[in-house]
Amino acid sequence: MTFRTLIVDLGERSYPIHIGDRVLDRADLLAPHLEGRRAVVVTNATLAPLYADRLERTLAAAGATAGRIVIPDGEAHKAWPTLDAVFGGLLGMRADRKSVIVALGGGVVGDLAGFAAASYQRGIDFVQVPTTLLAQVDSSVGGKTGINHPLGKNMIGAFHQPLAVLADTGTLASLPDREYRSGLAEVVKYGAIHDADFFAWLEDNLDALLAREEAALVHAIHRSCEVKAEIVALDERESGPRALLNFGHTFGHAIETVQGYGKWLHGEAVAAGMAMAARFSVRLGLLEPAEADRLEGFLLRAKLPAQPPRMEPGAWLDAMGRDKKNESGRITLILLDALGRARIEKAAPVGELEAFLATA
Amino acid sequence: MTFRTLIVDLGERSYPIHIGDRVLDRADLLAPHLEGRRAVVVTNATLAPLYADRLERTLAAAGATAGRIVIPDGEAHKAWPTLDAVFGGLLGMRADRKSVIVALGGGVVGDLAGFAAASYQRGIDFVQVPTTLLAQVDSSVGGKTGINHPLGKNMIGAFHQPLAVLADTGTLASLPDREYRSGLAEVVKYGAIHDADFFAWLEDNLDALLAREEAALVHAIHRSCEVKAEIVALDERESGPRALLNFGHTFGHAIETVQGYGKWLHGEAVAAGMAMAARFSVRLGLLEPAEADRLEGFLLRAKLPAQPPRMEPGAWLDAMGRDKKNESGRITLILLDALGRARIEKAAPVGELEAFLATA
Repeated sequence: MTFRTLIVDLGERSYPIHIGDRVLDRADLLAPHLEGRRAVVVTNATLAPLYADRLERTLAAAGATAGRIVIPDGEAHKAWPTLDAVFGGLLGMRADRKSVIVALGGGVVGDLAGFAAASYQRGIDFVQVPTTLLAQVDSSVGGKTGINHPLGKNMIGAFHQPLAVLADTGTLASLPDREYRSGLAEVVKYGAIHDADFFAWLEDNLDALLAREEAALVHAIHRSCEVKAEIVALDERESGPRALLNFGHTFGHAIETVQGYGKWLHGEAVAAGMAMAARFSVRLGLLEPAEADRLEGFLLRAKLPAQPPRMEPGAWLDAMGRDKKNESGRITLILLDALGRARIEKAAPVGELEAFLATA
Repeated sequence: MTFRTLIVDLGERSYPIHIGDRVLDRADLLAPHLEGRRAVVVTNATLAPLYADRLERTLAAAGATAGRIVIPDGEAHKAWPTLDAVFGGLLGMRADRKSVIVALGGGVVGDLAGFAAASYQRGIDFVQVPTTLLAQVDSSVGGKTGINHPLGKNMIGAFHQPLAVLADTGTLASLPDREYRSGLAEVVKYGAIHDADFFAWLEDNLDALLAREEAALVHAIHRSCEVKAEIVALDERESGPRALLNFGHTFGHAIETVQGYGKWLHGEAVAAGMAMAARFSVRLGLLEPAEADRLEGFLLRAKLPAQPPRMEPGAWLDAMGRDKKNESGRITLILLDALGRARIEKAAPVGELEAFLATA
């Protein structure tokens, strides 16, 4: 029962991420934050029977009184009606401003429960207990919370930092294979945009990761969070370098939007989006073709898609034009100069992009 | 066309409040914030025909491209369906993260449009153009935004500071008498909790204020915002002294909740709530009876209610127990030691309170 701790340094909003098997049983990690407070576990119907009782025992041992709100499972529920049900639950149990939300689940639960915390009574504290690889390496750092709107993904939300994150690698054992691999797409993203050595380490250790070996997982999650934290610390409100984290996401969000939420997993869409961004980087003469091939090779070994579905160029551009990172109608893309080095292109050449999309 | 400017000092979130007749025509006040940006006016169906064209001309002169979203008038619409319509409008016009919301209206518009700004794409800028006395002296300072939930008022929201506030006293001319007087309740609150001289000035100048005389209005609004800003600057996130601003509001919110939103105007409920808090202060031996009488006398001269409606003690306590400022089930009240000096009572004596409410 060893674990590693990473401190996300955001001044007075700094917080620890504890990574390892069974960290969700460690009352000592939560007591400093929760002792004497009411802790409301927000989780989904799939995870509640697996982990909620264990977590509530930990909360009790940490000196908190626990409550529980269970939401339906699935991206379709990352929406107002579910958020409204969470607010209703909090009000029904008289949660006050000193209450703490404990988000137990993947990205949907973390984003929705985090936004509930950001906006309930104009903001209460929350703790993240991410139970998917994607959530552990992505939602753990950055404070992004929110819900979808019928007209766009993640269009309503807030930046709200947790008190602490418990990334229990043991919870990944119950993750379906497809979801687990989808999380690996975000892991390899950190290598691709920021750390060539980490990318090479991932290539060398992919088999151990696919076997969900504890030591490899702890390293991969720790380094992913570290890279993300470095970038986020430079740019908490996402006006500059943080955009690098969207590598693969502009194309990926377009895939999710056009295909309909849920058909492609987020990580699968990002995987295809990263491969596209790499190929577009090659087309613009920024990236060596061999580097794009290496990225695609990794994705294929991880059984992740490197090709997008068939979509009309007009549908691509329409969906990409609605991305939050765009300013004044231009399309921002994250491109690669090399594996381990990305750049922000604030006004992607639209003609080139259309030609590229026509053959994508 | 003179005006006064007050800077609300919140470090990097500092912003100016410009107070005076026709400040909404002053493009020079907005250009530094809005030049080259898209400005989306959010207003209601009553105010749009009165001021929206004028404001949009000012925005255009300030170098912004203007859009408009009109919501229905009334507190009943300070709720999710209206907020959702604003999000839909923003997405429909492809508002991006550099877009700015310009909230033109009273408290409902300001709170709702401010929360739309706080949460659209996880936060965009906004400008307040409050058109009621209440909004000019209350919503202008403090950054509180939000909507109501069926189970409680202002239960969903965010702290989000505007870029600037234009408090145009000329817009008060069109305000119905009852709403105008309701705003005076918040004005006298600042005197009662923090500034005995201002309280006395208000007693001396009530006739000029009731006649909506420009000079008296500018002074009253300026000093009200100044008092609020002083208190908010000490305590932006409402963990300490900011609670003083809730003088009259715990009782007042209970009146609004039990009577149903909209039957009593907010300022009317606050007026009765202040009179109750003063009488309860007398009952606890904190305040001289003559001081409570002076406050009641002012309210009555301003034709504001000093008595609550008939309500069961159980209904009072139930509604007061749901107030956001409460911690761990205790009831927090703001009480007076004297006119101009308030205190925060974090655990009001419940037995005394029940006895008081039984005769209220």
